[in-house]
Amino acid sequence: MNIIVGQSGGPSVAINATLAGIAIGGIKNPKIDKVYGMLHGIDGILNENLVLLNSYVDRFEVMARTPSMALGSCRIKLPPVEQKEIYEKIYAILKKYDIGAIYYIGGNDSMDTVDKLSKYFKLHDIPIQVVGVPKTIDNDLMGSDHTPGYGSAAKYLCNTMEEIICDSCIYPTPNIVVVEIMGRNSGWLTLAAGMPRFRGKIMPQIVILPEQPFYEKEFLEKCRELLVRDRTVVVVCSEGIKDEDGEYAGMSTKSGAVDIFGHAYLSGVGKYLEGLIKKEIGCKVRSIELNVVQRCSAHLASACDLREAAEIGMEAVRASMAEGLTGVMFGFERVSDQPYEMKIIYHSVGESANYEKKVPEEWFNTDDVTVQKEIRDYITPLIAGDVSVRRKPDGSPDYEILYRDFYPNTEA
Amino acid sequence: MNIIVGQSGGPSVAINATLAGIAIGGIKNPKIDKVYGMLHGIDGILNENLVLLNSYVDRFEVMARTPSMALGSCRIKLPPVEQKEIYEKIYAILKKYDIGAIYYIGGNDSMDTVDKLSKYFKLHDIPIQVVGVPKTIDNDLMGSDHTPGYGSAAKYLCNTMEEIICDSCIYPTPNIVVVEIMGRNSGWLTLAAGMPRFRGKIMPQIVILPEQPFYEKEFLEKCRELLVRDRTVVVVCSEGIKDEDGEYAGMSTKSGAVDIFGHAYLSGVGKYLEGLIKKEIGCKVRSIELNVVQRCSAHLASACDLREAAEIGMEAVRASMAEGLTGVMFGFERVSDQPYEMKIIYHSVGESANYEKKVPEEWFNTDDVTVQKEIRDYITPLIAGDVSVRRKPDGSPDYEILYRDFYPNTEA
Repeated sequence: MNIIVGQSGGPSVAINATLAGIAIGGIKNPKIDKVYGMLHGIDGILNENLVLLNSYVDRFEVMARTPSMALGSCRIKLPPVEQKEIYEKIYAILKKYDIGAIYYIGGNDSMDTVDKLSKYFKLHDIPIQVVGVPKTIDNDLMGSDHTPGYGSAAKYLCNTMEEIICDSCIYPTPNIVVVEIMGRNSGWLTLAAGMPRFRGKIMPQIVILPEQPFYEKEFLEKCRELLVRDRTVVVVCSEGIKDEDGEYAGMSTKSGAVDIFGHAYLSGVGKYLEGLIKKEIGCKVRSIELNVVQRCSAHLASACDLREAAEIGMEAVRASMAEGLTGVMFGFERVSDQPYEMKIIYHSVGESANYEKKVPEEWFNTDDVTVQKEIRDYITPLIAGDVSVRRKPDGSPDYEILYRDFYPNTEA
Repeated sequence: MNIIVGQSGGPSVAINATLAGIAIGGIKNPKIDKVYGMLHGIDGILNENLVLLNSYVDRFEVMARTPSMALGSCRIKLPPVEQKEIYEKIYAILKKYDIGAIYYIGGNDSMDTVDKLSKYFKLHDIPIQVVGVPKTIDNDLMGSDHTPGYGSAAKYLCNTMEEIICDSCIYPTPNIVVVEIMGRNSGWLTLAAGMPRFRGKIMPQIVILPEQPFYEKEFLEKCRELLVRDRTVVVVCSEGIKDEDGEYAGMSTKSGAVDIFGHAYLSGVGKYLEGLIKKEIGCKVRSIELNVVQRCSAHLASACDLREAAEIGMEAVRASMAEGLTGVMFGFERVSDQPYEMKIIYHSVGESANYEKKVPEEWFNTDDVTVQKEIRDYITPLIAGDVSVRRKPDGSPDYEILYRDFYPNTEA
């Protein structure tokens, strides 16, 4: 029997470690002959665009520390299982390659693919196992204490915020710095950006989660008070904060504003808060959008994150082969914070697909010291440990993008 | 005799290493009793806001690896030396503290301060030496092969670009990523962001310097060609690129566009290029503004940069005391690329003040392999070597902001 593995959704620093874990788990497993990789997720099956990972074992170590996705990604949502055509096509190709199990690494949408494929195969008595392995920097997957990829993004954010805070306080004039953080519907990454504060520092003074409605007036009042008290005010806010009407803050639908090309003006929330502060307070203000750098900074990867990402991949292969699992997603259950102990678990993927795990309501009041301690205790072990970046003789990071072998022009 | 040191202009990762170098050089020098620091540059003298650095020696080692400016900064331009009032005030305070020499760390504007103060003191036979020590991530100071701060920012940029390139290639659809880099009038940092290319990779394919006029049509043509050839196109551009009329690209003065608050729409150049590509090509496009993170990422500091930054500070004190120098700026002269060898020099500060060193015309054609080699040879030694970040028990970086002692609310 052969198995196949794919990556899907947005990239992270840890998803290649999971890929390496699955591939190594597969290669070592006596039940398994070959481990295939699909290029660009489920697209790779549909286009028969497969690679034999057994040939790349000597490159796994570097690949596991390379950001982004070594097999490429896709954003495809499968139709309902009643629309047989696409499923039949997938099955025909899997059969051709004697595939007995699919491992799909991804977030909510990818778990939907796992759910549908496994349902289709069960419905038609096809003996192909389908197993989901989690990945998302957003940490918003149900059924897991946290997700591989979150720890490294969280570590990047709390380090970078320390540095931005140093950078923000140098002038004697009152000023506000707004930092926009990824996470459209959940504030896990924004909490990580607030870590300097949760470790007992003054800054960032304001943490804005997308789970709560954003009130302009309240925000401006808080800014004015803090400017007097601290002179420099640092704000971290989720890209997805919404106003009282549930509309994303910073959207132009109400204002009718247009950019220089005449398009509707869709600023990020950082730029929106910058404009708001400029207009209403008039002090010096700067906004920073950390953008994709927060999901690809492998040089600041968390050792805990990469280790767990590889382990969950290996365990997913071991357990699914031993127990014949299908339609499940693997995840973590936290046994204890101190010492940090984690258990790998699995459950029905239907419990995760298409749901989002939000920051719990008890954590909304980030001014409360008990809340601060709980957040700190939750995040601290996940960002622990440095990973050394292997460098080439010229000093550049030695990253391993497997697909450069298949698409010669993506990287030289 | 006592001396005083100040920091001015924008922050960098290396300016505290220079501060430490000057302070240690002063403390060890038998001619010098006390080393004072001015808080917020020249403002610190005017407000008699001084600190005795001799008391902080045990914190210099960590301070030298801390981003931003340990003494705070200012942006003050002194009036012509004929307007005596402010100069008399400065002199009175310096006299009170028995100051025999001023060391001022900064860029072009700060060297103007050094120039004027030294001229005023000479004119009035006041025996106070005034010495400039360079600092700027922009690398645009005349009279120095490069400036402390540039190497670390350059290292951050070429590392981060490697990671952004990994992140950009994962989808099977054609896409363009535009990364906006600091440097309004000179393209030194943009060249550093292009380093993956100058090391022989395909990406970034397009490098846009501010020294050359930007032509929309030519740019779009190149993008279209590269999309076909490489599928993913990565562009690095200076924040200060100008169109054919010498107007900053992305300004709204022509278009009359406004933001959601009714302000003139002043997008960064990244957003402008994103909008241009969206309108004219219509492919997937993302723009990234690296913002202050490129000047404060101490965790990616260049060991060469921090070492040189400290050395130039120490040498400035030693040489100026030994030779009675005033009105000079210290700098580097490159003796050789391989092995890398640098000599510390000085010359009249008037040669640096208010001038900007641009990228030479011979380097504009970044498609030429000889040019690529020259750029690589210039930058490679400056970004060499890692600096370990000292961490607190909770894993957070141990940064030392000296002024937290004086402004209790700037950092807890």
